Amino acid sequence: MKLVRFGAKGAEKPGIVAADGSIRDLSGHAPDFAGDGLTPAALDRIRALDPLSLPQAPQVVRLGSCIARTGNFIAVGLNYADHAAESGLPVPKEPVLFNKAPNCLAGPDDDVVLPPGATKGDWEVELAIVIGKTAYRIEEKDAVAHIAGYAVCNDLSEREWQTEGTGQWVKGKAAPGFGPLGPWLVTPDEVGDVQALDMFLDLNGKRVQKGSTRTMIFSAAFCVAYISKFMQLDPGDVITTGTPPGVGLGMKPPLYLKVGDTMHLGIEKLGEQRQTVVAYQG
Amino acid sequence: MKLVRFGAKGAEKPGIVAADGSIRDLSGHAPDFAGDGLTPAALDRIRALDPLSLPQAPQVVRLGSCIARTGNFIAVGLNYADHAAESGLPVPKEPVLFNKAPNCLAGPDDDVVLPPGATKGDWEVELAIVIGKTAYRIEEKDAVAHIAGYAVCNDLSEREWQTEGTGQWVKGKAAPGFGPLGPWLVTPDEVGDVQALDMFLDLNGKRVQKGSTRTMIFSAAFCVAYISKFMQLDPGDVITTGTPPGVGLGMKPPLYLKVGDTMHLGIEKLGEQRQTVVAYQG
Repeated sequence: MKLVRFGAKGAEKPGIVAADGSIRDLSGHAPDFAGDGLTPAALDRIRALDPLSLPQAPQVVRLGSCIARTGNFIAVGLNYADHAAESGLPVPKEPVLFNKAPNCLAGPDDDVVLPPGATKGDWEVELAIVIGKTAYRIEEKDAVAHIAGYAVCNDLSEREWQTEGTGQWVKGKAAPGFGPLGPWLVTPDEVGDVQALDMFLDLNGKRVQKGSTRTMIFSAAFCVAYISKFMQLDPGDVITTGTPPGVGLGMKPPLYLKVGDTMHLGIEKLGEQRQTVVAYQG
Repeated sequence: MKLVRFGAKGAEKPGIVAADGSIRDLSGHAPDFAGDGLTPAALDRIRALDPLSLPQAPQVVRLGSCIARTGNFIAVGLNYADHAAESGLPVPKEPVLFNKAPNCLAGPDDDVVLPPGATKGDWEVELAIVIGKTAYRIEEKDAVAHIAGYAVCNDLSEREWQTEGTGQWVKGKAAPGFGPLGPWLVTPDEVGDVQALDMFLDLNGKRVQKGSTRTMIFSAAFCVAYISKFMQLDPGDVITTGTPPGVGLGMKPPLYLKVGDTMHLGIEKLGEQRQTVVAYQG
């Protein structure tokens, strides 16, 4: 299934993409996509519906983040060997974990606001995992049963705030709107092999990131199991799993986002996002 | 006001400490303490009640975390000069920020479970701030108007997981139960000068931490304003603001938590916590 949330910001409804590509309104049949609305039982109730029997969403409609909110927004850093190299950092022996602010989720095509003083905004196309079942100290082989689905995430950063201060990264990863998620939450059965998905990001029409989840150092399943050794993962928690080479920080000289820039990014089977960078309006 | 949550884990009710010291049941008059239940308007509605007119809670009752859940659990590191010194780290020029898992909140007297493999468990008595009003890019002088109240937090850590891996600290700060919060959420009007509160932590009856919020490098108000430059703070978000000297990591040789240890900690005007360390039961 491809699950979506559509409508104005803060008033999104849950929906599903039907076989004909139309978005159908699930709000009469399912809770919003967050927490217990993402458990295997909740998704099975949606799976039992005929999408084409549901009301159609407006043809032109904004998409919100594909989940309504998250209890924990966890990110894995340096999870592609080539990206670690371009960042001038060694390939990690174990996943690097840091946090984004849970309230920085945004719609896949929402404008990206550069916060005042942000001079080193950067992009990262990433495979994100949404948890569907509580996981604490689980094994890698059991991980997929705890995953509600996958989505595209642009793990936006402000590099000066992330790396030039005190060494902890959250400061540069948490501004409002720094976590576009979607367009769809795609269930594992529809994704197939999640470690064989091509991905890209174009900046102003020029391809800057090109990669594949084949080159992830730590697989999606490994990351879920690994993180579950340190903390309990709950339904609706998000893990964004790192980015392939081609971010602005790694260019010589580095290239950072400015107002008017456009980003177009996507992952095979998971859909695409298009964002325009805008100034903060106060 | 001193706000509490009482009852069995997962079934707590909101309450208030009356003038006679008894806990009174607010569940018929107020939503649980989280998100919009913590806004100035919500707290004013509670303030208008006569606590002694409310039903009394059982005389012997478990206390839960003084808020039901948090959207973001942020921690400030090395915020007391002497603690930075005992950790062998320089005094930071700006606050060090990292995250705890939002779901690691616990009751003030709940047992602390040492996760399997945790050999370097450590304690930290801290002043925690609970946000009451959305704050983004606010000034320090306006910070207190965005604070719902203050509480004692034991910012429990596993030092190997925190510091000996990849450099990002969340791994050692996020295990289930690693964030006891309470007993009370005390509103700013009742605390008075939050930068003049004595604090302590006793391990197995011996005083190991003794300090005062007077020696914080960055004040509570400064921390709220500073963090709001990087992310939006929402009602119910928690900021725990760092610990004075006397943690296990700083002892020579280091001393870490073992099953059977007891912690007794408190902050002037904010109450006390008592925890026993227990083994993980699987």
